[in-house]
Amino acid sequence: MPDNITVLGLGLMGSALARALLAAGHHVTVWNRTPAKADPLIAKGAARAATPAEAVEASPLVIVCLLDYPSVYEALKEVSLAGKTVVNLTTGRPAEAREAASWARGADYLDGGIMAVPQMIAGPGALILYSGSKDAFDRHEQALAVMAEPRYVGADPGMAPLLDLAMLTGMYGQIAGFLEAAALVTSAKYPLTEFTTTLLIPWLNAMAALGSAWAEKIETGDHRTEVSNLEINKAGLENLVRTFREQGVKPDLLLPMKTVIDQRVAKGLGHEGLSVLIEELA
Amino acid sequence: MPDNITVLGLGLMGSALARALLAAGHHVTVWNRTPAKADPLIAKGAARAATPAEAVEASPLVIVCLLDYPSVYEALKEVSLAGKTVVNLTTGRPAEAREAASWARGADYLDGGIMAVPQMIAGPGALILYSGSKDAFDRHEQALAVMAEPRYVGADPGMAPLLDLAMLTGMYGQIAGFLEAAALVTSAKYPLTEFTTTLLIPWLNAMAALGSAWAEKIETGDHRTEVSNLEINKAGLENLVRTFREQGVKPDLLLPMKTVIDQRVAKGLGHEGLSVLIEELA
Ligand SMILES: NC(=O)c1ccc[n+]([C@@H]2O[C@H](COP(=O)([O-])OP(=O)(O)OC[C@H]3O[C@@H](n4cnc5c(N)ncnc54)[C@H](OP(=O)(O)O)[C@@H]3O)[C@@H](O)[C@H]2O)c1
Ligand SMILES: NC(=O)c1ccc[n+]([C@@H]2O[C@H](COP(=O)([O-])OP(=O)(O)OC[C@H]3O[C@@H](n4cnc5c(N)ncnc54)[C@H](OP(=O)(O)O)[C@@H]3O)[C@@H](O)[C@H]2O)c1
Repeated sequence: MPDNITVLGLGLMGSALARALLAAGHHVTVWNRTPAKADPLIAKGAARAATPAEAVEASPLVIVCLLDYPSVYEALKEVSLAGKTVVNLTTGRPAEAREAASWARGADYLDGGIMAVPQMIAGPGALILYSGSKDAFDRHEQALAVMAEPRYVGADPGMAPLLDLAMLTGMYGQIAGFLEAAALVTSAKYPLTEFTTTLLIPWLNAMAALGSAWAEKIETGDHRTEVSNLEINKAGLENLVRTFREQGVKPDLLLPMKTVIDQRVAKGLGHEGLSVLIEELA
Repeated sequence: MPDNITVLGLGLMGSALARALLAAGHHVTVWNRTPAKADPLIAKGAARAATPAEAVEASPLVIVCLLDYPSVYEALKEVSLAGKTVVNLTTGRPAEAREAASWARGADYLDGGIMAVPQMIAGPGALILYSGSKDAFDRHEQALAVMAEPRYVGADPGMAPLLDLAMLTGMYGQIAGFLEAAALVTSAKYPLTEFTTTLLIPWLNAMAALGSAWAEKIETGDHRTEVSNLEINKAGLENLVRTFREQGVKPDLLLPMKTVIDQRVAKGLGHEGLSVLIEELA
C-alpha cells in the first residue's frame, strides 16, 4: 500500500532516497533549499513543496537528509512536527542525535546512519542503522526497507550514529593498513592489483573473521593467546618498520600501534594477546 | 612417491611442518638444537640426526625453520649445502633473505613466508609464499603443497618476506581499526560480539573488496572519486575524533590517518580520493 512520505533535502543522498521511494510506488513530497534539484524527481512523479512547513504538512512520515544538524535546525526551526514521525538520516555525532530527539519532542523521532553511498541505495549491500522510537521503526519498517536494509539498534537515539562511526572507524583502520601495504609492495615493484586481489583481500577477510573471537575475549576480559603474544608482535613490528625504512617507505600510519604495544610490553605485560590493547584506549 | 626431506628446527612451527610431511608419507629426517623436541616426531617415524651436518646429508631437500636468521647461520655455519635445495621458512626481512641466498651459493635457495599459525598447517587456508629459485620450486612444489598452499612470487629471494610483511601490515591496520571501533562500541555499552558479527565483519569484507579498484587507481595514478574526497573525509574524521573524546575513548591509533588527510587538504589537494594518500607515504 503506498504511503505518503516527505523527503527534506535533495542532495546526492536525499535524491537517491526519494527516487527509491518513488520507484516503490509511494506518494513522495519533496523540498530542497535550492529548488532546481527537485526537478528530476518531479518529472518522476514527486510533489513539490515550496517550504519545509508545506513539505512536513504533506505526510505523516518525514525523512530528513541534509548536510549536517545545523542545517536541520535552520530548515525546521519554525515548523511544527507534532504528531509526525521524523526520520533524520543526516550524519552527526551521537550527542547531536540525542539533542535533536529532545528538540523534536511531540514527534516520534528516529535517527539513522546510512552505511552506503548514493549509488548503492535500493540495491544489495546498502544498510541503514536506526535508533530511537521503536514504535516508529515498527510502523515504517516496510517503507524504510525500500531504501536500504533497515536495522534497529536501540532506543538511545545516539546509538545509530555511534555504531555508524564505529564502522567507519574500522574502515579507516583497514584503509590505513591497505595504504601502507600498497606502499611497501609498490616499492618492491610487485604488481599491486595482483597482490591485492590474490593475496591481501583473502587474507584480510580471513583475519576479519577472527573478530568475533576477539570480541569475546574483550567481553570476558580473558586475553590469553595461543597464537602470538605482544612480545612476538613487538618483534614483528620492529622487523616491519625496519623493512619500511630499507624500502624507503614511511610506516607512519602504523606507528601508534607499535607505540601502544611497546608501552604494554615495557610494563611487563607482554604475555597476552593483541586484543588486550583495548585497555590502552580507555 | 615419497621424498627424502630434512627439517631443521622443531619449534612449534617446524614440528607442525615435519608432522605434515610425515603424514603425507615422506621420509623425514629431523634436527633440533634441544634434542628432546624431536621425540614426538621420532615416535611418528622420523629419523633423528645428531647434528645439522648429518641432517643436511640425509636429504636433497632441506627445510629450515628456526627462530631468526642469526640462528640459521649459527646452525649451518660449518655445513656444506652444495647440491642441496634449501627452503628457508625462517621469518626475516627481505634484505636478510637476499643475504642468505648469496651465502647459500652452491645450493638452490628458496625463501618462504608462512601465512599461517602452526595449528593451520596442512589444513585449509594455510598459505606459504616462496621466492628465489623457480627450478627448486617447480621440482618440489608437490612436497611443499603438503604443508600449505604454495605460491611462487618471484626470483628475488626477498619478495616472499616482503609480501609476507605487506600482508601483516594490512592486518595490523585492520586490527588497529577493530580495536578503536571496539573501544567506541564498548563505551556505549552496546554488545560487542553482536556489533562485530552482524555489522563490522560484513562491512569490512565489503570495504576490502574495493581494494582491487583502489590498487588500479594507485597503478594508474588516477585518484578521482565519485564517492568521498579528502575534504569530506577530513570532516568525517573530525566528527569521529570528537565523538571519541565525548565517549572518553582515545582515538590514538587513527590519528596519523587524520594528520595525513589534513596535510593533503591544507596543500589545496582535497578533491581527490583517499587512495591518493599513498603519495604521502613515499
Ligand atoms: N553521499 C554519501 O555517500 C553519504 C553517505 C552516508 C551518509 N551521507 C549523509 O547524507 C547527508 C546528505 O549528504 P549528500 O551526499 O546528499 O550531500 P550533498 O549532496 O552535499 O547535499 C547536501 C544537502 O543539504 C542541503 N543543505 C545544506 N545546508 C543547508 C541549510 N543550511 N539549509 C537547508 N538545506 C541545506 C543542501 O541543499 P542545497 O541543494 O540547497 O545546497 C543539499 O540538499 C549528509 O549528512 C551526509 O553525511 C552521505
Ligand atoms: N608460530 C607461528 O605462528 C609462526 C607463523 C609464521 C612464521 N613463523 C616463523 O617460524 C619460525 C619458527 O617459529 P616457531 O613458532 O617454531 O618458534 P619457536 O617455537 O620459538 O621455535 C624456535 C626454534 O628455533 C630454534 N633456535 C633458536 N635459536 C637457535 C639457535 N641459535 N640455533 C639453533 N636453533 C635455534 C629453537 O631451538 P630450541 O628448541 O633448541 O630452542 C626452535 O627449534 C620463526 O621464524 C617464526 O617467525 C612462526
